[in-house]
Amino acid sequence: MSGSIYGNLFKISTWGESHGKGIGVVVDGCPAGLTLTEEMIQVYLNRRRPGQTKYATPRKECDQVEILSGVFEQKTTGTPISLVVMNTNQHSGDYSEIANYYRPGHADYTYDEKYGFRDYRGGGRSSGRETIGRVAAGAVAMAILNQLGINVCAYTKSIGDISIDYKNCNKENILLSPLAMPDLQASMAAQALLDLKMQELDSVGGVIECIVSGMPTGIGEPVFDKLDANLAKAILSIGAVKGIEFGSGFQSSQMSGSDNNDNFRLDNEGKVRKLTNHAGGVLGGISDGTEIIFRASVKPTPSIAKTQDTINKSGENIKVNIKGRHDPIIVPRGVVVVEAMTAVTIVDMLFMSMTSRIDNIKKFFGH
Amino acid sequence: MSGSIYGNLFKISTWGESHGKGIGVVVDGCPAGLTLTEEMIQVYLNRRRPGQTKYATPRKECDQVEILSGVFEQKTTGTPISLVVMNTNQHSGDYSEIANYYRPGHADYTYDEKYGFRDYRGGGRSSGRETIGRVAAGAVAMAILNQLGINVCAYTKSIGDISIDYKNCNKENILLSPLAMPDLQASMAAQALLDLKMQELDSVGGVIECIVSGMPTGIGEPVFDKLDANLAKAILSIGAVKGIEFGSGFQSSQMSGSDNNDNFRLDNEGKVRKLTNHAGGVLGGISDGTEIIFRASVKPTPSIAKTQDTINKSGENIKVNIKGRHDPIIVPRGVVVVEAMTAVTIVDMLFMSMTSRIDNIKKFFGH
Amino acid sequence: MSGSIYGNLFKISTWGESHGKGIGVVVDGCPAGLTLTEEMIQVYLNRRRPGQTKYATPRKECDQVEILSGVFEQKTTGTPISLVVMNTNQHSGDYSEIANYYRPGHADYTYDEKYGFRDYRGGGRSSGRETIGRVAAGAVAMAILNQLGINVCAYTKSIGDISIDYKNCNKENILLSPLAMPDLQASMAAQALLDLKMQELDSVGGVIECIVSGMPTGIGEPVFDKLDANLAKAILSIGAVKGIEFGSGFQSSQMSGSDNNDNFRLDNEGKVRKLTNHAGGVLGGISDGTEIIFRASVKPTPSIAKTQDTINKSGENIKVNIKGRHDPIIVPRGVVVVEAMTAVTIVDMLFMSMTSRIDNIKKFFGH
Amino acid sequence: MSGSIYGNLFKISTWGESHGKGIGVVVDGCPAGLTLTEEMIQVYLNRRRPGQTKYATPRKECDQVEILSGVFEQKTTGTPISLVVMNTNQHSGDYSEIANYYRPGHADYTYDEKYGFRDYRGGGRSSGRETIGRVAAGAVAMAILNQLGINVCAYTKSIGDISIDYKNCNKENILLSPLAMPDLQASMAAQALLDLKMQELDSVGGVIECIVSGMPTGIGEPVFDKLDANLAKAILSIGAVKGIEFGSGFQSSQMSGSDNNDNFRLDNEGKVRKLTNHAGGVLGGISDGTEIIFRASVKPTPSIAKTQDTINKSGENIKVNIKGRHDPIIVPRGVVVVEAMTAVTIVDMLFMSMTSRIDNIKKFFGH
Repeated sequence: MSGSIYGNLFKISTWGESHGKGIGVVVDGCPAGLTLTEEMIQVYLNRRRPGQTKYATPRKECDQVEILSGVFEQKTTGTPISLVVMNTNQHSGDYSEIANYYRPGHADYTYDEKYGFRDYRGGGRSSGRETIGRVAAGAVAMAILNQLGINVCAYTKSIGDISIDYKNCNKENILLSPLAMPDLQASMAAQALLDLKMQELDSVGGVIECIVSGMPTGIGEPVFDKLDANLAKAILSIGAVKGIEFGSGFQSSQMSGSDNNDNFRLDNEGKVRKLTNHAGGVLGGISDGTEIIFRASVKPTPSIAKTQDTINKSGENIKVNIKGRHDPIIVPRGVVVVEAMTAVTIVDMLFMSMTSRIDNIKKFFGH
Repeated sequence: MSGSIYGNLFKISTWGESHGKGIGVVVDGCPAGLTLTEEMIQVYLNRRRPGQTKYATPRKECDQVEILSGVFEQKTTGTPISLVVMNTNQHSGDYSEIANYYRPGHADYTYDEKYGFRDYRGGGRSSGRETIGRVAAGAVAMAILNQLGINVCAYTKSIGDISIDYKNCNKENILLSPLAMPDLQASMAAQALLDLKMQELDSVGGVIECIVSGMPTGIGEPVFDKLDANLAKAILSIGAVKGIEFGSGFQSSQMSGSDNNDNFRLDNEGKVRKLTNHAGGVLGGISDGTEIIFRASVKPTPSIAKTQDTINKSGENIKVNIKGRHDPIIVPRGVVVVEAMTAVTIVDMLFMSMTSRIDNIKKFFGH
Repeated sequence: MSGSIYGNLFKISTWGESHGKGIGVVVDGCPAGLTLTEEMIQVYLNRRRPGQTKYATPRKECDQVEILSGVFEQKTTGTPISLVVMNTNQHSGDYSEIANYYRPGHADYTYDEKYGFRDYRGGGRSSGRETIGRVAAGAVAMAILNQLGINVCAYTKSIGDISIDYKNCNKENILLSPLAMPDLQASMAAQALLDLKMQELDSVGGVIECIVSGMPTGIGEPVFDKLDANLAKAILSIGAVKGIEFGSGFQSSQMSGSDNNDNFRLDNEGKVRKLTNHAGGVLGGISDGTEIIFRASVKPTPSIAKTQDTINKSGENIKVNIKGRHDPIIVPRGVVVVEAMTAVTIVDMLFMSMTSRIDNIKKFFGH
Repeated sequence: MSGSIYGNLFKISTWGESHGKGIGVVVDGCPAGLTLTEEMIQVYLNRRRPGQTKYATPRKECDQVEILSGVFEQKTTGTPISLVVMNTNQHSGDYSEIANYYRPGHADYTYDEKYGFRDYRGGGRSSGRETIGRVAAGAVAMAILNQLGINVCAYTKSIGDISIDYKNCNKENILLSPLAMPDLQASMAAQALLDLKMQELDSVGGVIECIVSGMPTGIGEPVFDKLDANLAKAILSIGAVKGIEFGSGFQSSQMSGSDNNDNFRLDNEGKVRKLTNHAGGVLGGISDGTEIIFRASVKPTPSIAKTQDTINKSGENIKVNIKGRHDPIIVPRGVVVVEAMTAVTIVDMLFMSMTSRIDNIKKFFGH
């Protein structure tokens, strides 16, 4: 079974390799009547496009999205939405050398083991360009969430050992920093760190934090399709992500129950509030109405120019320097991908929650 | 949609609440011809049974499993396997008080919000007893993995700030420690910490580490059904788990690429080896043939006797002391649940991988 | 993969063999707040129980259903509902002879080929008793449909060449006839035909017609999860069913378009009506608001006492007379199974339709 | 939920409307290493292209397929295969009038009811052009089946009351008849019938028969994912299909068990044979190794030039003559679609069957 389809009710089916003709996604299950244009989607795709900063590889990619189906007079019809970005800037020659060896930290070896061979050009399906389909689908999901007052906002929380504190998630600040780090002072320190890494022909990792606000309560389907469980799958499916934690996460393993429990209070208007949010907005796998907060750990870019030991397909131990310009950091480009996968998952789970109570179902059908 | 069914080819459908008549699981997709007995399953269930140590609540539960279908003359028939544990020791009276308020850190509030009401007795479906179904299914999965030389081994890596180093995962050592901590010195220190927490009417969290050995390469289905992504969902679906990381995990966010990359080497027999395993056995979402290693972060037990602030259903702010005996730690009981969910996921993914190559399919059907 | 789980949002997971310990189903996805009792389910199970007429085999089966989870104070909790009927009247001795040969028309041969062996007692999982799980789940689905004013009614339309015309589907008439044939005169003629078949040590087939009234429009998910496509799968999955047709069905293959098209008219109240219903209530795979009508063709009972040619497991051509009392007709027992599978499918499809329009979703979440 | 994704292990995700930019499909789960070219797919697409006979509407469509991903150096990579046919010959002007009324027999009404509005041009997603995606995916499935010696062959069995007897399914004969009717004499008689219908400004229906040869035994997953149940869903999902029957189908409802049962015999080489094939190659939902035979009933083309009663969107009863050239028969164009959906389903079910026995799994993984 291939695993390029994600979702239960809001399904996305992605396709495309780094050096194939194009990359895209089919969104199946988007409700009818939603305003959707290519511009709305392009905004998100532009946030993943390299070349904006000196820390991204200069392969210029236009990545213009086209809507091929599912929209009529700028409204979704309820039928599948096919989104395509044609590959216009691919040089197969750049990559022919790596056809013969396995780059450390990349999926070259595992794809060969799985399929018997691989499209070696640029990483094929394991390339970061595969995220184009995810981000395009995420744009559609965001359009739905906007209708429901739900906001998804991710940013770079740390690069290497330079970390920032959580503040109001302000989209403008995130866009001002070339590293998607809303603390501009830390952003500059991180830039210095990256310059150093580039000199060393090396790379570094980081952490992306994501906050979802405006969630209704009751979203999540115990015991297996819990909200945090599905978000974990969605985020871990993003290349280079090696960990995820919700709320106080790994820190809670060292806390006492009295400190980690979030206490409930009723405010003056009789609305239920929590004094803290160590739960990260999810209790028993179901949203509790407060902000959902999680962090994803991103490993350092595997492609580095530094000399590395590896093996080639002829069965020899060799040393390689992977040619070409390399991003010293993946994190800033992953921010919009984390938002996209989160949005897609939240929409799917909102849809799943609609059948929890017989009263709601009766009301829906006019009884 | 309810989310009590897990898996694509090896599916488990769990049911049962803490104070209902019983708890169980239906395993659909277990291949025919596998030896399976109630004793084989009981071994795993016994590992989750409280009362073995002074750190677990003394509700005596016999939890004897019964096979109701899918096995004939001690061999699986390929038809669904229904496993049941009848609840014999439930006192509804113990819990009637909590019907009227929301225990902090528990799913009482979110279940009420989702369904409109809840079975308040003992936590209903959000109770830890729900894991009986998972563990029983895990036993079936383990029986399959044993046939394939794959071993799943989890243990307590840390309790509070007492942590141990990874050594050979030796099942006997784990069973010797009442806390499933294979470093017996650390186990005693942790016991002292727990005694302190009990005196304080409080609790503490911990981390469970899990190691899968004997994995073939090529298991995992990019881009969404990656091996680590599916394991993340499976583990995060376990109650009280708030984070997961693979290999160097969150630490890799602060490492350089040259340090974090695992280099490939061919050994004397020409077999592919890695010098390190920061990847945790998964590259590009696919197994690379080395050990899969991940850690799950478990929050401290929410139920504590200490006074806490919360609200009741009549809309008042109140203070509560949750009556009854409480486990100061969930982690040791969660170890077998982590193994179970890992085993179930690995089996499902092994099955999914069988159709990756046309050559294998032709051979399978005799062409 | 085993195929004992059915549904997308309203999922049923059946288990159990003819001579195992019990037979049951887990219903996952039933909304919370629905009144559900064992009596409500027993009503449906009683309609499949043999021994009521002289045309059904006299194995007395009590088939009392028990609710093991998912209901609290007579209301569904939204958690999985486990329903069980324990087997109390199974004689393994009755069937030992057929362990060694393949009964014509039965699944003995194909189960052996698929799994390598089979539970030969009474047909194992291929036995008609497997329908207990389906009917129990159907009862839950019916409870939901009752809340929505949707009625599912099936009856025997023909036995052999004795056929009746469609009239008002009146449940009382159906229950008056021991053959579930609401035309009592035809019912008596059919009884005579069956007496003849029993004398001949033979059997005969028939057709079940099913009518769903009160359907809202717009139910069905093109292009693959069309309403009629999913009903076809559900009904063809019932043992002994070899065909299905909707509306004018196979007859439409010989009609002209002008005759087969249903014309739309607005009645005095401005409501949309159709002058005919050759479509059987489904247009383009979506309900059109009129009655859904379909017919399922049921083959004659394979187990007959008449001498037949077959082969045994030792590789010899033999002649057999299958011992025991045999039903000369399956159809009357299949009527409630058709209703059950129809109800389960309709509920699932109603749930799936709730996300068709962004307006409805916004309204649902209070926007 | 939208229903444009079909399959469990071999999944197809179709998209596209009659007058959108294009129509296509993403095939997810095709194993790696299969030879696949655009020419191989074009052969199947050409069989659905109108304009070949005088009985098909003269809208010239080039329908050239393009492979956008999933193939490298003419071999499938195991990654998703995106196939596209761009729409080049669509005139929106042709259809503007039907925006305001509901064509009888078409899905105009039901799509409006479901989504609130519809892309009225040419039927939008309910148009026959939607089958392009299915047929392209079917070509990929056929390539797999060819590797396994399995052959799928469909043809026109009847048009109106002109029916033919089943003979060897010879692909050449089918291609010789413009109506895909391998009995050339009957084909001519049917042509005369169609000429008459065109004069009458009317249409007629027919039946497509499909035969699958070379099936292994043991394919099918009781109790819900039976081989015939899944084929029924696949075929009923094709527009205009209103019924399906396997083997003796509806006829068996009037047969006796002694006549309808297929008796097993061992031939001279000790191979299991059946003397008849009333079961249509499926017993208990599992393939028995003989030919799978089923028939699909296709209703007459709804679009006729004859005057019909209907209603318009302003709430008035009107009379219409649907303008334009209309096919008097859908059946010949449906033949390749039936083959495609059958091939896709058979591949999916072959994959599902690979995990039926623990022995096969152990052998697969080298144990």
